[in-house]
Amino acid sequence: KHILVIPGDGIGPEVTTWGKAVLEKIGQNHGHEFTFDEALMGHAGIEATGNPLPDETLEKAKASDAILFGAIGHIKYDNDPSAKVRPEQGLLKIRKELGLYANLRPIMLFDELLDASSLKPEILKGTDILFFRELTGDVYFGEKKRSEDRNTASDLMIYSRYEVERIAIKAYEAARVRGKRLCSVDKANVLEASRLWREVVQEIAKQYPDVETEHMFIDNAAMQLVKNPKKFDVVLTANLFGDILTDEASQIAGSMGMLASASVGDGTGFFEPIHGSAHDIAGQDKANPLASILSVALMLEISFGLKEEAKKITDAIDKALKDGYRTGDIADANTDKAKILGTTAMG
Amino acid sequence: KHILVIPGDGIGPEVTTWGKAVLEKIGQNHGHEFTFDEALMGHAGIEATGNPLPDETLEKAKASDAILFGAIGHIKYDNDPSAKVRPEQGLLKIRKELGLYANLRPIMLFDELLDASSLKPEILKGTDILFFRELTGDVYFGEKKRSEDRNTASDLMIYSRYEVERIAIKAYEAARVRGKRLCSVDKANVLEASRLWREVVQEIAKQYPDVETEHMFIDNAAMQLVKNPKKFDVVLTANLFGDILTDEASQIAGSMGMLASASVGDGTGFFEPIHGSAHDIAGQDKANPLASILSVALMLEISFGLKEEAKKITDAIDKALKDGYRTGDIADANTDKAKILGTTAMG
Ligand SMILES: CC(C)[C@H](C(=O)O)[C@@H](O)C(=O)O
Ligand SMILES: CC(C)[C@H](C(=O)O)[C@@H](O)C(=O)O
Repeated sequence: KHILVIPGDGIGPEVTTWGKAVLEKIGQNHGHEFTFDEALMGHAGIEATGNPLPDETLEKAKASDAILFGAIGHIKYDNDPSAKVRPEQGLLKIRKELGLYANLRPIMLFDELLDASSLKPEILKGTDILFFRELTGDVYFGEKKRSEDRNTASDLMIYSRYEVERIAIKAYEAARVRGKRLCSVDKANVLEASRLWREVVQEIAKQYPDVETEHMFIDNAAMQLVKNPKKFDVVLTANLFGDILTDEASQIAGSMGMLASASVGDGTGFFEPIHGSAHDIAGQDKANPLASILSVALMLEISFGLKEEAKKITDAIDKALKDGYRTGDIADANTDKAKILGTTAMG
Repeated sequence: KHILVIPGDGIGPEVTTWGKAVLEKIGQNHGHEFTFDEALMGHAGIEATGNPLPDETLEKAKASDAILFGAIGHIKYDNDPSAKVRPEQGLLKIRKELGLYANLRPIMLFDELLDASSLKPEILKGTDILFFRELTGDVYFGEKKRSEDRNTASDLMIYSRYEVERIAIKAYEAARVRGKRLCSVDKANVLEASRLWREVVQEIAKQYPDVETEHMFIDNAAMQLVKNPKKFDVVLTANLFGDILTDEASQIAGSMGMLASASVGDGTGFFEPIHGSAHDIAGQDKANPLASILSVALMLEISFGLKEEAKKITDAIDKALKDGYRTGDIADANTDKAKILGTTAMG
């Protein structure tokens, strides 16, 4: 299998180094051959070519069997809202070009990290959520406008039936082999796009009578996720709401540094941590590489059907945590100072 | 002062009964004269007149000195995404008609309720946030469209400079007399409306050099609010993001049943709990009336400048909680069964 590694910006290069290393090790131990190539995206792409998604990167991406991505973004652009070329455009464009319409974000709870969360352990224990976030539609990709006097700005929040259908089907298929509960999140009491979303999900639901469907407003969902995360099994939602809810949900897992995601759809799968570029700690050997390593586990399972190999990875992480090893983001008051590791040591 | 009471739907009538009763008591005890009128809105408005905001309600609202509102919404419409007339339209229309562009949502922490939250007490303690949610713009009020074949639906997310300016000024003025920190939340790495938002806030910030400004992406804010709520002082954000973040933040206060809000702008102020209509418990004497009573405290302070009277109310609530009294939503494992009260007893 041919893997394209796109390290991206900030801590991206550091963490993908370890994702890749783990993949190589799995290859050696289990007799699989993985070949690798590397490409630029985001701020790194802009610096080298002026383009956040260089043509060469897109070609390589299309030619690969799976993509391991790091992170994107740079503080320089965040403080300059008028910049025309922005790192994030690279990520949005590759999602669209590869047809990666379904972003799977499992909220995995390692028992050892129960104390690293700001939520009480008794609230957390037993939580197991799989988010399906729509990834190539919504206000992310609708038309953007700025009036000539620059005093009015808009983005079109838009969905079409087929976009909702295809991700709803993926989410229901997953719910069927998990807890058989699906919660669709929208804002149908206010938004027309959400009303279409709800109509379509109601229709698809009929094909899955074995799955219990609930519809929830986004404001309520943001609340319930903190109040009682155990009530969720599969959560299906739009691009923007999914962006918000999954970051919020990262606190269930104790840290963003522990969460991986898989973006799938028409072709090559794309695997990335849900954390960002974290420029404040970049290059300091402080970043948690586990989300990148867990992204590799998702790749093995989803793109290559290698379940056993994926489990080797989560078991190894489990063991490292049980042995008391932590990166700074998941260390708590009880963590032995001697066991707080940097990126390299944890990798 | 002339107060219009709009009970609305679900538990709205039950909780506003007690808000009103407290206001009457304050009037008696402190020598203020409050006169009252009542009007319909939401599902109640639709049932009586076919209109979620009857003309008479709007006229009465404009003629009053302050409005005490209950809750809106009905499950009937939630499950019918194609309904043309909906309860929520009443609330959205009155916000727009009265020019209520700034929605203030203070996250108040009663020490006695630290254990009612799903967050750890040490994470919560000391949290004191004042949200400024923009209330008459954004994707809530932008053009809504449905294609003729009904297969595509959209809502326009749109902001103009003056809309951001006027609420930013209100938020900065508040920050100046609070903790002198303001966090503006947007999604400027993806949305044009957010880039305008950030530009305008950056400009207004220059007039408040004594206030420390931070810009945060909504996904990150949704995470930080759980991870470390103490880091926030004043939070300034758009309509949709504010809707989501404030519901999420309700879990900091232990329950939505404890949170009041004030909507202000060009004219009459509008005071309401942030909780919804909660039809599942309506009419059962179970709803927590404290958010409505706290809404009255906000009314006294913001619309009438009666700080001392407002404090009487929060002190009385504090005492009831210290004495161990709870409604079901804020009871925890340590609450004595004998002290769990219904709406009436708590009121
Ligand atoms: C970097 C940004 C454009 C991106 C998004 O909003 O989709 C990120 O937050 C994510 O969740 O992958
Ligand atoms: C009922 C609904 C339209 C409303 C909103 O989204 O503004 C509510 O959630 C609120 O926060 O006041």
